[in-house]
Amino acid sequence: MIYIVGVGPGSEDYLTLKAIKTVKNADIIAGSKRLLNLFDIADSSKFVLTVNLKEELKELLDKKENYSNIVILSSGDPCFSGLLKTALNYVDKKDIEVISGISSIQIAASKIKISWEDYTILTLHGKEENRENLLNLIKNNKKVIFLPSNVKKDIKYLLDNGVNPNKKIWICESLTYPNEKIIYDSFDNILNGKNDISYFSVCIVD
Amino acid sequence: MIYIVGVGPGSEDYLTLKAIKTVKNADIIAGSKRLLNLFDIADSSKFVLTVNLKEELKELLDKKENYSNIVILSSGDPCFSGLLKTALNYVDKKDIEVISGISSIQIAASKIKISWEDYTILTLHGKEENRENLLNLIKNNKKVIFLPSNVKKDIKYLLDNGVNPNKKIWICESLTYPNEKIIYDSFDNILNGKNDISYFSVCIVD
Ligand SMILES: C[S@@+](CC[C@H](N)C(=O)[O-])C[C@H]1O[C@@H](n2cnc3c(N)ncnc32)[C@H](O)[C@@H]1O
Ligand SMILES: C[S@@+](CC[C@H](N)C(=O)[O-])C[C@H]1O[C@@H](n2cnc3c(N)ncnc32)[C@H](O)[C@@H]1O
Repeated sequence: MIYIVGVGPGSEDYLTLKAIKTVKNADIIAGSKRLLNLFDIADSSKFVLTVNLKEELKELLDKKENYSNIVILSSGDPCFSGLLKTALNYVDKKDIEVISGISSIQIAASKIKISWEDYTILTLHGKEENRENLLNLIKNNKKVIFLPSNVKKDIKYLLDNGVNPNKKIWICESLTYPNEKIIYDSFDNILNGKNDISYFSVCIVD
Repeated sequence: MIYIVGVGPGSEDYLTLKAIKTVKNADIIAGSKRLLNLFDIADSSKFVLTVNLKEELKELLDKKENYSNIVILSSGDPCFSGLLKTALNYVDKKDIEVISGISSIQIAASKIKISWEDYTILTLHGKEENRENLLNLIKNNKKVIFLPSNVKKDIKYLLDNGVNPNKKIWICESLTYPNEKIIYDSFDNILNGKNDISYFSVCIVD
């Protein structure tokens, strides 16, 4: 069986018991170094994924008959802008089991203390075409949680298209990591501020 | 401090390490019997919540000075149609910390193996007025994940308002419990079938 296992936002604290058990019972575990390090895994069972994720996953899944239990680690929830979609290019639905994980969206909501059923959730991550949706939502005063493509460029696009520069945005960077940083400021200040804003962020406009 | 702790869909397997730690360090833990049973808690530290949830929570929070760490257990994710909203009627944002949990929405997505960023998420739970939104989404062929109000009544409303009775729906009942049941059938068959459909379900239309 192939398990796509969500490991949450990054801190070990957000692992589920099910993720831990599933990794323990696998004979090979694929994931980025960062995610593999969340578990206690023998080197011989690791299959390190790099930026060439797609080729590497294909390579592993082409020889899936060699293993009884394969785990593929996904950050956050595999079913949100996650590895489920990628994996389905190479394997059949019936051959996989998906283990949900806590999404970065949820951690952002928990930090700001909002209920995400009141928000539209959107990802610009690898989908710049969603910027137009974001623009329409914000112009219609809808509340939005989104994964940015590039925070400053995303904001520039909004302002170039008539959004009020004084409108405020939450930027939640590196959630659950020691360098977690949460900023609440106007579009204008973020865009013209000296600081870089990491793409590793969840943004909220309410 | 007051912690609103998400405990996931029901099975112990979906507890996070953080939820377990936070409960261990609390001097009083409020929750329904079902949720309290997920943990190993001394009876003297339990504060059982019943159907009079609101009054009981208020009673507990009115004497919050008596405790150093209060935990309020919430099913799924407290930030999704969960106890965060209720708690904010009685306490200030600054006095609480929220611990995310796996939502029933996510488990449903993991079972059907879909990515929820492609779906509109809606709750009719205690919000029948959202039926009209659901109707519009389905008429516009949008993909939707929703918490039902009453599955058969919700479907009747859709069909009475012109939705194709042959359209299919997933109904995911009692997820992660031993009696978990996942049905995929037409609106018509569900509505006219003999079986009761529990409100304890997540529904998906794609
Ligand atoms: C490919 S998506 C994966 C999303 C993941 N499946 C989830 O449910 O969170 C990667 C993006 O998620 C967001 N992200 C993931 N983990 C994060 C964290 N700990 N803090 C802030 N953003 C995070 C960032 O926007 C990042 O660029
Ligand atoms: C008050 S809402 C709480 C939702 C919760 N905060 C969450 O994130 O899943 C209760 C509704 O959630 C859904 N639900 C919660 N747990 C479920 C489970 N294990 N299986 C199916 N539906 C569930 C049902 O529709 C139920 O009526």
